Amino acid sequence: MKLWGGRFSGRTLEEVEEYTNSLKTDHRLYTYDIKGSQVYAQALRKAGVITSGEERKIVSALNRIKKEMDSGSFSFHSSDEDIHTAIERRLVELTGDIGKKLHAGRSRNEQVVLDVRMFMKDAGKELLYSLAHFVEVLAEKAIKYASTIMPGYTHLQRAQVVTAGHHLNAYACALYRHLTRFQDFLERNDELPLGSGALASNTLGLDRRFMAEKLGFSRICLNSMDAVSFRDLLAEFTFICAAIMVTLSRFAEELILWASDEFSFVELPDEMCTGSSLMPHKKNPDVPELVRGKAGGVIAAAVALLALEKNLPLTYNRDLQEGKVHLFSAFDTTLASVNIMCMLVERLEFRRDILAGAAEDWKLLMTDLAEKLVQKGVPFRTAHEAVGKLVKHLMDNKESPVEIRDSELKKIHPALDPEDVKTLCPEGSVKARKVPGGPHPSEVKKTARRLLNLVKAHTKNKMC
Amino acid sequence: MKLWGGRFSGRTLEEVEEYTNSLKTDHRLYTYDIKGSQVYAQALRKAGVITSGEERKIVSALNRIKKEMDSGSFSFHSSDEDIHTAIERRLVELTGDIGKKLHAGRSRNEQVVLDVRMFMKDAGKELLYSLAHFVEVLAEKAIKYASTIMPGYTHLQRAQVVTAGHHLNAYACALYRHLTRFQDFLERNDELPLGSGALASNTLGLDRRFMAEKLGFSRICLNSMDAVSFRDLLAEFTFICAAIMVTLSRFAEELILWASDEFSFVELPDEMCTGSSLMPHKKNPDVPELVRGKAGGVIAAAVALLALEKNLPLTYNRDLQEGKVHLFSAFDTTLASVNIMCMLVERLEFRRDILAGAAEDWKLLMTDLAEKLVQKGVPFRTAHEAVGKLVKHLMDNKESPVEIRDSELKKIHPALDPEDVKTLCPEGSVKARKVPGGPHPSEVKKTARRLLNLVKAHTKNKMC
Amino acid sequence: MKLWGGRFSGRTLEEVEEYTNSLKTDHRLYTYDIKGSQVYAQALRKAGVITSGEERKIVSALNRIKKEMDSGSFSFHSSDEDIHTAIERRLVELTGDIGKKLHAGRSRNEQVVLDVRMFMKDAGKELLYSLAHFVEVLAEKAIKYASTIMPGYTHLQRAQVVTAGHHLNAYACALYRHLTRFQDFLERNDELPLGSGALASNTLGLDRRFMAEKLGFSRICLNSMDAVSFRDLLAEFTFICAAIMVTLSRFAEELILWASDEFSFVELPDEMCTGSSLMPHKKNPDVPELVRGKAGGVIAAAVALLALEKNLPLTYNRDLQEGKVHLFSAFDTTLASVNIMCMLVERLEFRRDILAGAAEDWKLLMTDLAEKLVQKGVPFRTAHEAVGKLVKHLMDNKESPVEIRDSELKKIHPALDPEDVKTLCPEGSVKARKVPGGPHPSEVKKTARRLLNLVKAHTKNKMC
Amino acid sequence: MKLWGGRFSGRTLEEVEEYTNSLKTDHRLYTYDIKGSQVYAQALRKAGVITSGEERKIVSALNRIKKEMDSGSFSFHSSDEDIHTAIERRLVELTGDIGKKLHAGRSRNEQVVLDVRMFMKDAGKELLYSLAHFVEVLAEKAIKYASTIMPGYTHLQRAQVVTAGHHLNAYACALYRHLTRFQDFLERNDELPLGSGALASNTLGLDRRFMAEKLGFSRICLNSMDAVSFRDLLAEFTFICAAIMVTLSRFAEELILWASDEFSFVELPDEMCTGSSLMPHKKNPDVPELVRGKAGGVIAAAVALLALEKNLPLTYNRDLQEGKVHLFSAFDTTLASVNIMCMLVERLEFRRDILAGAAEDWKLLMTDLAEKLVQKGVPFRTAHEAVGKLVKHLMDNKESPVEIRDSELKKIHPALDPEDVKTLCPEGSVKARKVPGGPHPSEVKKTARRLLNLVKAHTKNKMC
Repeated sequence: MKLWGGRFSGRTLEEVEEYTNSLKTDHRLYTYDIKGSQVYAQALRKAGVITSGEERKIVSALNRIKKEMDSGSFSFHSSDEDIHTAIERRLVELTGDIGKKLHAGRSRNEQVVLDVRMFMKDAGKELLYSLAHFVEVLAEKAIKYASTIMPGYTHLQRAQVVTAGHHLNAYACALYRHLTRFQDFLERNDELPLGSGALASNTLGLDRRFMAEKLGFSRICLNSMDAVSFRDLLAEFTFICAAIMVTLSRFAEELILWASDEFSFVELPDEMCTGSSLMPHKKNPDVPELVRGKAGGVIAAAVALLALEKNLPLTYNRDLQEGKVHLFSAFDTTLASVNIMCMLVERLEFRRDILAGAAEDWKLLMTDLAEKLVQKGVPFRTAHEAVGKLVKHLMDNKESPVEIRDSELKKIHPALDPEDVKTLCPEGSVKARKVPGGPHPSEVKKTARRLLNLVKAHTKNKMC
Repeated sequence: MKLWGGRFSGRTLEEVEEYTNSLKTDHRLYTYDIKGSQVYAQALRKAGVITSGEERKIVSALNRIKKEMDSGSFSFHSSDEDIHTAIERRLVELTGDIGKKLHAGRSRNEQVVLDVRMFMKDAGKELLYSLAHFVEVLAEKAIKYASTIMPGYTHLQRAQVVTAGHHLNAYACALYRHLTRFQDFLERNDELPLGSGALASNTLGLDRRFMAEKLGFSRICLNSMDAVSFRDLLAEFTFICAAIMVTLSRFAEELILWASDEFSFVELPDEMCTGSSLMPHKKNPDVPELVRGKAGGVIAAAVALLALEKNLPLTYNRDLQEGKVHLFSAFDTTLASVNIMCMLVERLEFRRDILAGAAEDWKLLMTDLAEKLVQKGVPFRTAHEAVGKLVKHLMDNKESPVEIRDSELKKIHPALDPEDVKTLCPEGSVKARKVPGGPHPSEVKKTARRLLNLVKAHTKNKMC
Repeated sequence: MKLWGGRFSGRTLEEVEEYTNSLKTDHRLYTYDIKGSQVYAQALRKAGVITSGEERKIVSALNRIKKEMDSGSFSFHSSDEDIHTAIERRLVELTGDIGKKLHAGRSRNEQVVLDVRMFMKDAGKELLYSLAHFVEVLAEKAIKYASTIMPGYTHLQRAQVVTAGHHLNAYACALYRHLTRFQDFLERNDELPLGSGALASNTLGLDRRFMAEKLGFSRICLNSMDAVSFRDLLAEFTFICAAIMVTLSRFAEELILWASDEFSFVELPDEMCTGSSLMPHKKNPDVPELVRGKAGGVIAAAVALLALEKNLPLTYNRDLQEGKVHLFSAFDTTLASVNIMCMLVERLEFRRDILAGAAEDWKLLMTDLAEKLVQKGVPFRTAHEAVGKLVKHLMDNKESPVEIRDSELKKIHPALDPEDVKTLCPEGSVKARKVPGGPHPSEVKKTARRLLNLVKAHTKNKMC
Repeated sequence: MKLWGGRFSGRTLEEVEEYTNSLKTDHRLYTYDIKGSQVYAQALRKAGVITSGEERKIVSALNRIKKEMDSGSFSFHSSDEDIHTAIERRLVELTGDIGKKLHAGRSRNEQVVLDVRMFMKDAGKELLYSLAHFVEVLAEKAIKYASTIMPGYTHLQRAQVVTAGHHLNAYACALYRHLTRFQDFLERNDELPLGSGALASNTLGLDRRFMAEKLGFSRICLNSMDAVSFRDLLAEFTFICAAIMVTLSRFAEELILWASDEFSFVELPDEMCTGSSLMPHKKNPDVPELVRGKAGGVIAAAVALLALEKNLPLTYNRDLQEGKVHLFSAFDTTLASVNIMCMLVERLEFRRDILAGAAEDWKLLMTDLAEKLVQKGVPFRTAHEAVGKLVKHLMDNKESPVEIRDSELKKIHPALDPEDVKTLCPEGSVKARKVPGGPHPSEVKKTARRLLNLVKAHTKNKMC
C-alpha cells in the first residue's frame, strides 16, 4: 500500500521503490510507532475526529500488530515503504475505514521524529546504565588494585610511579563524564513533537499536552517547523557515542600494549581472546582491537549526521531519512562495545610482580629527586637540569643511582644528597603523593568510592 | 630557552624545532597562562616552597609580561617552543633564580589543560551570549512578521501555508538548544586540573581547592591521570560548534534561495553582499555562502579532535598538541558566523507582497481541504486520495479550484463541497492553526516571547 | 568450527563470538574466496604439498560449496566466524583430512586481502561501466538540448546565458574524471597478495606468479608485510565513491531546485517521484534528495577507513576487519546512486519555454555589454563600472534596457551605445561564445561527441 | 580597491569585509596569479583587445609586482579582498587605464581555479619527489638491515620471524603506491581552465590552446562550467595527503613502540627528540607523535573538502573559497611530515642485539613447525592443532621446546619429531622463506633494488 498516489499517473519504478525504501532500517521503531499511534488515536477521539468505539478498535488492532511483530509473524509486503506504512496498511486490513481515519493531521515525518525521540530516550538510558555499570566495575577494580605499584607513562615513555587503581580510576572518571552527557541529552530530548503535522501543525484541535503526558514527555516542542526539521539531537546522541568510543579505544590500546610480550602487564582471559588460523601459538586481543576499529565507524557516523543535514532548507527533506541509519549503527556499536569492554575489565587481572619490576626503573623517580632538591631551596629549573645531568651520567656509564659515587654526585650538583638519591623507591614516591586526585592508595579508594556513589542511582535498576 | 636538556647530548635539529613548535597556535592562551601561574605561585608560597617575597616578585613580573604581550612589545625568541616556555623564559630574565622556582611540581601539559579549560570557559560564555543575542534578534523579527503569510516547504516543494514569524522562530528554537548545550558544557568543564603534575600529582603539598577557588573553578578533577590525558571536553566544545554551523548552514541555504531571482522573498542588504569582478550586474549572497562553506571546516575540526585522540595510551602524548588548533579554529569560525548571521537577520526584510503571492498557490491548501473532509467524517486516507485526484484534475486541465465545475467536483468525490473548495484561502489556513507551536500569529508571538524570556538572563551583559 | 584453539583452555564467551563475528559482512566474498582457494590448491599441488587427486577433490568440493551458496542451500553454523571459516568447515565435512590440507601456509587475513582485491576489481569495473553509461546518457541529452537557452548561475544568482546541453556536459566531464580515477585504481590494485602468509610469506615454495596468472593479476606484491598490512587501496576506492557522490549531490541539488515551483525548469517523471502521506498535492523529488543524503554516508565511509587504519602497528590488527563494512557500504550506495541518477536523466525533459523566459532576464547580458565596450577600447574596469551604474539605474527606475532613454545612457557613460544596449539578446550572447569549451550549440555537440568517444570503450560490454 | 561596486549603494560593512576576506590564505598563490595574468595579457593582445605596447607594460608591471611580493615590500591594503584584487589594484596604480584592461573576459574564480591547478602541479611534484626520496632512504636502510632478524607482529603479538629490512621495505612499498597516486593526479590535473570566464567562456576570441602551451598545460578543459565549478581535484589531492599521513602514522606508532623501555628496539637520535619540562629523565618521541596527531588534521581536511562541495548547485558558490584553506593545510602538513619522518629514518639505527634476543622467543617458530608437519603429510589443520597443544603444554609447564621430553612430544602428536622441534631457530625460519616478497635477506635486497629503480627517475632532480 502507498499512503499517497491520487495525483500521480505513472507507477513508481521498481528501482526507485528499492532505492527509497527504508524498512530495513526503521522496522526496529515499530514499538514506538504503535505506542505513538495509540496515543494519537486517543487525541483524535478527544478532538471529536473519531468516536470512542473507533478509538478502541484502532488501539486493539495496533496491539495485535505489535504482537505479530514481536513474534515475527507479521507479513511485510514489498510495497511497504517503511515501518509506518506497513503498520497503517495492516491496520486498514484489520479495521477497514476506521483505520483510514488514524492519520488525519499527521505526517510520516512527524511519526519518524516522534519514534526517534522515543527510541533515543530508551537508548540513551540504556547507554547511561551500561556506562554506570562500567564505572562501577572500574571503581571496584581500582579499590582492589589501589596499592599495586606500576609505571605511569607519558609519550609511552616511563614517566612516574603510579598505582594500577589510580590508572583505572582515570577511565572511570572519563566514562562518568560521558554518562553526564547522556543525562543532559535526555533532558534536552524530552519534548514531544507530535501535533506538528508535516510542518504547519494541524487544524483538528489536538491536545498536545495530553499526548505529551501519555507518551512520557515533560514538554511539547515550541514550534512545529523546528520539531520536524532538525536532527541536531541525533547528531548529539551520535557524537556522545563517538566520544565514548574514543575513550574506549584508548583503554583498548592500553590493553593491547599490556598484553604484548614486551609489556606483559596483564594476561587477557582465554575466553575473551581468539587464535590464528595459521599460527598455532597465537592468542590475540581481538576484542580491544575491534573496539578501536569500530571507533572509526562511530566517528564516521557522527560525520554522516552532520554532513547530511548541512545546507538543507526547512523543513523536511528526504535526505534526513538517512539519519536513522547512522544513529542506530552508532548506538548498537557503542552499547556492545561498552558492555564487552566492561566484561573484559571484570575479568582483568594485573600481574603485580611484573608491574612492580617495571616500576623499579630508577628513571621513574627522577622527578621526585628534583622535587626533593626544590624542598631544599634549589630553584626547580636548576634542580631539573642537575637531575638531567645525573640521568645522562648514569646512562652513559650504565650505572644505577645506588652505584654512583658520592663525589661524582657532588660534581653534578652540590645539593644532590647521596642519602636522597639512594633511598628513592617506588613505594616512597607513591606515599609522597597523598594529595586529592593523587595515586596514593587511600586517595585511590576515596575517588573510587566517590565514583561508586555518583553512579549508584543509575545502576540499581540495571541487571548486567 | 629550553625547559629541558640536561640529559641530552645532541642539539635539536632546526627542522624538528620547527615541526614541533606550537607558539603560533598557543600564544593566544597567554592571559590564562599568566593568571594560572600567578595562582600557582600563591599555592607554592602556601606550601612553603617559595617565600612571600618571592611570590610577590613572580606575580609582579608576570603582570609585566602580560602588559608586554597585551601591547605587542614582548619579544619572542625563535627557541620559544610554546607560550609556556616563552613566559617562563622571560620570567627568569626578569627575576633570575626566583623565576626558576615557579615550575616546581608542574608540567607544561598541565598548564595546557588548565589554560584550555579557562579558555573554554570564556569562549563557551561568549558563544552562549552570541547565541542568546541571535535568538533575541530572531524572536523580535518573528514578532514583526508574525502575521506575514508565506509558503512553507517540504522537499523544497510548496507544502502548506505558514507565517514568516513562525519560520524564524524555528531557527530561534534550534539555536536555543545549542545554547543549552553550552550551558551543560560549562558545568562539565568547571573542574580544576592544576595540581596533577605530569600525571601523578605532586609531592609538594599544594592546596588544590585553594587554587580552584582563586581561578574560579567549582570543583577539582578527581584523578590526576584523567585530568591530563583526555580531550573529550575539547571534542564536545568543537562538536557543539559544528552542530551550530550545521544549523546556520540551513538558514544560509534558505537566505540564498530567498535572494534568488526565482524566489525573490527577500532583498539582502547591499552592505552585506558583494559583487562580481566580471559581471557588473551581480549582487551575491557571499556571507551565507561562506557560512555554509565554513560549516564544512568546523565539522572537520570535530573529526580531527576525535581522530587524533583515538588509540592513544594514557597519559599525555604529543599528538594532543594538535587539539588546540582545531578547537580554536572551530571557535573563531563559529563565533564569527553566529555574529555575522545575526547581523544579517537584523537587516533582513521580507517582501510581504511576493510572499503573499507565492502563498496564493492553491496547492498549499489541499491538506486543509482533506482535513475538512475528515471533519465531515470521511476517513483521512479516503480524503487524501480524493483530494489527490482533484489536484490531478486541476493540473491536467490547468484549472484553479475556483474554476472547477461543481459536477466535476462531485464526480471526484461526493463529499467534496464546492463551498469548501472555493473558500480555501491562505489566511483561513493560518487561522485554523491556532494550536500550541502552530503558525497562527498569536502562537508565533507567544513562542517568541517565551524564547525572549528564556534567553534574557544571558543577553543582559552582552553588548553586541 | 574454529580454525584455532589448540593452545586455549577457556571456551570463547558467546558475547565475544558475537562481537567479533564478521559473517554478516564478508559472506558476499564467497565467490572470490572459493576461486582463490581453488587456485591455491593448484599451487599446493605444484609445490608437492598435496597430490593431484587431492587437488581434484578439493576443487570439486569447492565447486559444490559454491553451488550451495549460489542457491542459498548452504547451511551456516553459528560458530562460523567468517566466510573463510564457513567454507573451510564445509570443505572438511565434504572431504575429511584432504580438506584439512588446504590452508597450509595461508592465513585468513591473507584470504581477506586476496578476496577484497578481487572484489574491488569487479566492483571498480562495475562502477566504471555505470559511470561510462551515465556519461553517454548525459552527452546524448546534451546534444538534444544543445541549443536550448537557459540562465547560468553563480552564487545561485542569474549570471550569464548558457545552453542546457552545455550545463549537462559539465556533469559529464566531472563524471568522466571519476571514471579515470577508477582506471588508475584498477591498475594499482592489480597485484596478487597470495603467498604472503600471515606476514612472513611461507616455507612451502608456492609459485606466486603462477597463482597471479590463474587469478588474473598482472603482478605480485613485492613485500609480504605490505601485502597483508595496509588498507590504502580500500580507502582510495571509498574516496572515489565519496567524490562521485559529492558530484551527484550537486546534480541532485540542481534537479531539486529545477523541480521547485519557483524554478519550474523541469518536470520530474511521476514514476521517479513520491508523494506525501499527509499532503495530497505533493510530488516530491525523493530520489535526488536521497542521493544528497546518502552522499553524507559515503563521505563518512571514507573517514571511517582512514580513521581505523590510523596509528596501527604492522602487520595485521583486527581493527582492519571493519574496513570491509565501509567499503561495501560505499560501493553499494554509489553504484545504486549512479544508476538511479542515470535513469532520472534518461527521463529528464527541460521546459524549453520556461528556460527561455528565464533567460530573457536582461541582467544576464550585462557582461556581454561590458565586453562590447571593451572591444571599443574602453578599459574593462571602466566598462564594468559603467555597466554597473546602468544596472543600478535600471533597477532603481524599474526599467529594462530597451526602455532607457539615449540621453540617460550617455550620462552614465559616453561609450554606451543605444544600439548595443537595445540589441542585446540571449541568442546573440550564446552565438558570441563559439569558443572551445563554450556554450555555443556547435561547441556543445563537439564536446558531447568527444565524451561519447572517450567512454565508448567502456560502455560496449555494458547492458544497462 | 574593489573590482565591483557600480550597482551598489551601501558600503560593505567592515565585519563583512573581514568575514569574506581570503588574502591570508590565498596570498601564497601570487606567483601563479602573476604568471597567469602575463599569459592572459599575451592572449588579449593576440585577440586584438590590447596592443603590443600595452601587453609589454602589463607584463613588466606584473614582473615588478612579483619582485615587490618576493621581497616583502609590497604593501597590502586592508581593502584588498584577495590576492587577485591586490595584484590588479597595484597594476592599475602602476599602469593606469592600461591595467584596467587586463581583466576583460576573466573572472576572479577563473583566476582561482587556474592558480590552484598551477599550485597543485608544483605541490604534487614536490610531494612526489619527497616520497621518492623517502622510498630511497628506506630501501637503502632495508639493504643495510637485510639480514637483521627481528620478530614480526600481528595483533601486536609476536607472530613470526622476519628481518628488519623486510619490515622497512613494507613502508617503502606503501609509500611508492602513494607516489603513483600523485603521478595519476598530475596527469588528471593537467588541463587549462583559462578562457572559461565566470562560467560561460568569453566573447573575445581568446586562444585557449596558446595559453595552455604558454602555461605548461597539455590540454584545455572541455567545458567552461565544469572548469569553474568542481573541486574534485582538490579533494583528490587532499585525500592522497590523508592516505600518506595514515601510512606515516603507522610507522610513527611503531617508532614510538620501538623506542619504549619495553621494546627498546631502537634508540631515537637525541637531536630529533625532546624532553620534559617537569621530568628530567624523559626523552620523548615527539616527532612521530606529532605525525600521528597531524594525521587527524589531514583526514579532517579531506572531510572538509568533500563536505563543503556537497549539495552546491553549479557553477561557482562562495563556499568554495574555503577549499584552499584545507588544501594548503593538508599539503604543508604532509610535506613537512614526509620530510621529517625521512630524516628520522636516515638517523634510525636498530639495536641488533635486542632484536635478536626478542626473536629468540620460540613461539615465533611454531608456524614453521606446523609447516614441517605438513611437509611430512600431516593435514595442516591437524598439524595446527597438534602444535597448538604443544604450545599449551610448554606454557603450562614453563618449558621451552628444547626442554620437552621426547615422550611428551609423541604424546601430543606422533608426527612431532624431536629433531624438528629442537632445531627450530630464527635463522632457519628466515632461510626457509626465500620466496618472492619474503623476508630472506636476498629477497629483501632484491625488493629494495627494485624500489630504488622505480623511484630513480623521480629523485634525480631532488636535493633533500
